[in-house]
Amino acid sequence: MLLHDLPAGVHPRRVRIFIAEKGLQIPVRVVDVSRGENTQPDFLRLNPLGQLPVLQLDDGSVIAESMAICRYLEALHPEPALFGRGALEAAQVEMWTRRMETRVSDPIVDIFLHSSDFFRGRIEQLPAVAEWSRARVLETLAWLDGELAHRPYVAGERYTVADIVAQCAFVLGKAAGLRIPPERAHLARWFAAVSARPTARA
Amino acid sequence: MLLHDLPAGVHPRRVRIFIAEKGLQIPVRVVDVSRGENTQPDFLRLNPLGQLPVLQLDDGSVIAESMAICRYLEALHPEPALFGRGALEAAQVEMWTRRMETRVSDPIVDIFLHSSDFFRGRIEQLPAVAEWSRARVLETLAWLDGELAHRPYVAGERYTVADIVAQCAFVLGKAAGLRIPPERAHLARWFAAVSARPTARA
Repeated sequence: MLLHDLPAGVHPRRVRIFIAEKGLQIPVRVVDVSRGENTQPDFLRLNPLGQLPVLQLDDGSVIAESMAICRYLEALHPEPALFGRGALEAAQVEMWTRRMETRVSDPIVDIFLHSSDFFRGRIEQLPAVAEWSRARVLETLAWLDGELAHRPYVAGERYTVADIVAQCAFVLGKAAGLRIPPERAHLARWFAAVSARPTARA
Repeated sequence: MLLHDLPAGVHPRRVRIFIAEKGLQIPVRVVDVSRGENTQPDFLRLNPLGQLPVLQLDDGSVIAESMAICRYLEALHPEPALFGRGALEAAQVEMWTRRMETRVSDPIVDIFLHSSDFFRGRIEQLPAVAEWSRARVLETLAWLDGELAHRPYVAGERYTVADIVAQCAFVLGKAAGLRIPPERAHLARWFAAVSARPTARA
């Protein structure tokens, strides 16, 4: 097994934290995106979309998409259960993971894409998208803060992949000029707790 | 079990097709979004985000998010397997489902949100987002057409949830003025095949 990685990427970080939470050791190869290595034929044969992370298996099979890689690792190494146990808990973890993706992670990625110096000249930046996304995230944070008043983790009593998705988004948020406002005390408490886990810097 | 539904919605349609493919009968309650029923306290208690679909269980538990509902139903009724069988196939179905979501469904939703008469005055429409999303989808269709030259369905030899996500996106695409270009012959063949399934109009 070989993990093709991008250290700064929000989606690759999810997988690294997931692997660390499982206590697995998987060899890593860093793909040099700054030199366009992900757009070269060798990499496009692995993932025609040119995106990271990618997990390559010993038989040559390839799994792209961070959540697909995490699910594969969960199937091979069920403990600790990061996608929930049993049909209902698994569905609720999936619900919360989806909410963290579409309401937190995706719009933070859009803020970064459309306002960061890094992407200036690399893509057509639309300032209106950055603004619209920022307003949307701030609304979400108010709601999420209220949810976290009632339980320690995003999906319930235990740390799950929903927390991983959200914490990785907030790491990118810092680079995108978006921080958790101090008045969102429950959210800030949650972020401090997940950031203090030994796996957070994986 | 009760499914709270929105007949015209792209995400609720996924769940209805999924239920039909499983051969299940689940009572449905249509939520009248045009009258704002999804923003009323009764509905917000089910899903604070005001979105559909929502599956309500007999014990009062609630599952929102279309893919979470589908996974729950797959856990209860494993056949036919629409999320793949075994760790590797399940991961690859998840990979393709994610690609269909982020590369096909999400941008088609954005075209519709930001250019349709329906949303004029309901949200701040950004024509640049509609244009950018349209260009992105057209690029994706060229790639997806090439992929479908090699296999009958999006994720392989069998119809899966990845097909459901993509076909529902193209149904919305029609309403958003985006059709599969006739020169994308493999994609057109695939869409004709999935649209001809008895479950397609669920």
